Amino acid sequence: MASMAAVLNKSPFLSQPLPKSQSSHLPFSAVSFPSKPLRQGVIRAGLIAPDGGKLVELVVEEPRRREKKHEAAELPRVELTEIDVQWMHVLSEGWASPLGGFMRESEFLQTLHFNSLRLDDGSVVNMSVPIVLAIDDEQKASIGDSKRVALVGSDGSPVAILSDIEIYKHPKEERIARTWGTTAPGLPYVEEAITNAGNWLIGGDLEVLEPVKYNDGLDRFRLSPAELRKELEKRGADAVFAFQLRNPVHNGHALLMTDTRRRLLEMGYKNPILLLHPLGGYTKADDVPLSWRMKQHEKVLEDGVLDPETTVVSIFPSPMHYAGPTEVQWHAKARINAGANFYIVGRDPAGMGHPVEKRDLYDADHGKKVLSMAPGLERLNILPFRVAAYDKTQGKMAFFDPLRPQDFLFISGTKMRTLAKNKENPPDGFMCPGGWQVLVDYYDSLTPAGKQPEVVPA
Amino acid sequence: MASMAAVLNKSPFLSQPLPKSQSSHLPFSAVSFPSKPLRQGVIRAGLIAPDGGKLVELVVEEPRRREKKHEAAELPRVELTEIDVQWMHVLSEGWASPLGGFMRESEFLQTLHFNSLRLDDGSVVNMSVPIVLAIDDEQKASIGDSKRVALVGSDGSPVAILSDIEIYKHPKEERIARTWGTTAPGLPYVEEAITNAGNWLIGGDLEVLEPVKYNDGLDRFRLSPAELRKELEKRGADAVFAFQLRNPVHNGHALLMTDTRRRLLEMGYKNPILLLHPLGGYTKADDVPLSWRMKQHEKVLEDGVLDPETTVVSIFPSPMHYAGPTEVQWHAKARINAGANFYIVGRDPAGMGHPVEKRDLYDADHGKKVLSMAPGLERLNILPFRVAAYDKTQGKMAFFDPLRPQDFLFISGTKMRTLAKNKENPPDGFMCPGGWQVLVDYYDSLTPAGKQPEVVPA
Repeated sequence: MASMAAVLNKSPFLSQPLPKSQSSHLPFSAVSFPSKPLRQGVIRAGLIAPDGGKLVELVVEEPRRREKKHEAAELPRVELTEIDVQWMHVLSEGWASPLGGFMRESEFLQTLHFNSLRLDDGSVVNMSVPIVLAIDDEQKASIGDSKRVALVGSDGSPVAILSDIEIYKHPKEERIARTWGTTAPGLPYVEEAITNAGNWLIGGDLEVLEPVKYNDGLDRFRLSPAELRKELEKRGADAVFAFQLRNPVHNGHALLMTDTRRRLLEMGYKNPILLLHPLGGYTKADDVPLSWRMKQHEKVLEDGVLDPETTVVSIFPSPMHYAGPTEVQWHAKARINAGANFYIVGRDPAGMGHPVEKRDLYDADHGKKVLSMAPGLERLNILPFRVAAYDKTQGKMAFFDPLRPQDFLFISGTKMRTLAKNKENPPDGFMCPGGWQVLVDYYDSLTPAGKQPEVVPA
Repeated sequence: MASMAAVLNKSPFLSQPLPKSQSSHLPFSAVSFPSKPLRQGVIRAGLIAPDGGKLVELVVEEPRRREKKHEAAELPRVELTEIDVQWMHVLSEGWASPLGGFMRESEFLQTLHFNSLRLDDGSVVNMSVPIVLAIDDEQKASIGDSKRVALVGSDGSPVAILSDIEIYKHPKEERIARTWGTTAPGLPYVEEAITNAGNWLIGGDLEVLEPVKYNDGLDRFRLSPAELRKELEKRGADAVFAFQLRNPVHNGHALLMTDTRRRLLEMGYKNPILLLHPLGGYTKADDVPLSWRMKQHEKVLEDGVLDPETTVVSIFPSPMHYAGPTEVQWHAKARINAGANFYIVGRDPAGMGHPVEKRDLYDADHGKKVLSMAPGLERLNILPFRVAAYDKTQGKMAFFDPLRPQDFLFISGTKMRTLAKNKENPPDGFMCPGGWQVLVDYYDSLTPAGKQPEVVPA
């Protein structure tokens, strides 16, 4: 992953959003790749502007850190969970720009009801998942009348200050229903972060005392939106297309990304750059952990499946909600703040099985439909995922051709995992061998010695 | 109710929305009555424009009705429930302008996720409750490939045509969760209209064959938005303030309405008109039925509690969702289409008790907060309800004075109903005697002879 240069240049770029095509009927714009190449003159250098016009960075500058730490030591304390720290990280780097801290009630309500925030100038930015901090009755009592609190990590040391605070009720049932569209038991994020959380939410202006680090060997891959923008500018990107993922990359993904670049070149862009952007925060227990996914992505680049010259791999620090059409908006919006003006959306993004019923929780097409209509995302070009499958006639992954369905083999995530668990190989050309070996090693690391391999369905 | 003249003049008025004050912080505008009088010059004659610029009316004009009825006779049929007919009525008169029929999927999804619809020109209108038509598997099969269906009433005769139809899945759980913020059993509208409805929704362009009539003696009070606009123009209204209600009017309401007019006059308006607008569609079993409420409102006007010269009483044909902050937006938006540019919002609008837990379903303040921030309602001036209670020192309803709480008596809806059921009188000045007698008569009509009166809590 030498593609992520540590030295970043500083040349300022103009912000130049591309127009999004408008539909002609009230049933709003279908998701579609712009069919006509744009005229040369329309394309100009520079990255899309952050939401609200300015990237909001909330890490205290070095000269004032000592002073702020002293201040923090005197304040009532709120202890953060691991997921709270991840959200603090997200806020501190401006992924949620223009949000300046954990949400106050007006922001929370706008997020729940409208998936967007209205700014002072009347403009609207997208904001679909609540970024909130829960406290319990005891913590609320300990804060008393203070207008500021210190946020402390698991070791008890202050990591941030929250100022001009507002404490309001945490309507859990309503939050869950409006975010997930269900209140069924078994939603991973809900069980992890909401069910047992406090009955109050505390919002305010955030100042983070030091850049957030995890010391897991992966911090060097955690580029902030500002760092990503510098890297993208350094490379002279005139289009940036983001690919959110929380799974291993196979050759179908690679085909899609390569093909997207080709189409952007056809449209007249000179240097489209791929932002391959695995999610690094909380994921559910049966997802492949970040460290293994990063090893796998590294192999994919090493093996030349993706071109390191035109690819930036970085970690997106957000936790995962698995909230489908609601969450995919967050995934897209955050990437605008990192400079992406094209966003690739797959089938059933951020989806999962219904926790109780035998069906997918979300309609597989709702994610891209909702994304295409979402307030505040009008500047972003939505690229629907074309379906790739294993083409038996070519012996490689290819775009599915509905005229000859019998030639294609669909390899589901479940099947991929079962094969890797059993140390069996997928068809040649499904995934680069180095990447596949990482998956096999991961499942090997989980399997107790002597366990029988699972049966793979034919 | 002589105030509702049947003869309406035709002079065109300019549409002149009033600017809404903007807040200065991202935690968006507090709900507040404009504190400074507007300058004379700012106020101009004319009613606020309908959403989308034009009132959408979907009743077929007389010369084409015969032809359309012939067409309808040849089409696959979808039978409407009573609530479906009420929504068809709502759509046909343009309360939901610019919506042109039962929602297609893109409109349904925008409503669920964003409480608003984006129009072709990029502008946004509010739309917070799904106006959808459910069909079951059998009906879907009977429609086959037809692009049009006839909607038929309970007597089997066609009442409308739905064209360019789209049939899509009815995600009941998600619809309920996102609309009500809960999926708890016992939500009245859900049990009445969703739980047993079909698993498909059918959207399309609506043409209604005849104006909707109920023949219940109250049709003369069901003025359409176009008729209300004509009436308001005829009266020379330069401000219209709407009061949604589904309960009897007591003197606290009357005080609020009278006081609102006084304040609008202070702001410089010359002729503010009150639109007293009881909801006429589906309500839950323990609400007072429309016919009795209308009798009660009539007495209130007769007794001079409200001034007939500056009050228009009319029936709003929508069914009731009891969906709190989501639904209050619909109540407000529909009144824009009828010409109202001020909307009075109370505590816990469209709220009810949680169907399972012992608490209110919604935070009592969320309704007005959400309403003040709702997309597409920026043109509407939101007037928060001031709390009125019975002032024992004055012997009448008055605005609550927090400096002398001991002087005020709060008479809840429950207490009011219990008193009326027991034929007891409320304190003098709580409600005009004629209006109170209507309530007593209503509960009397329900009570089996010889039943013991309920005990009134002290």
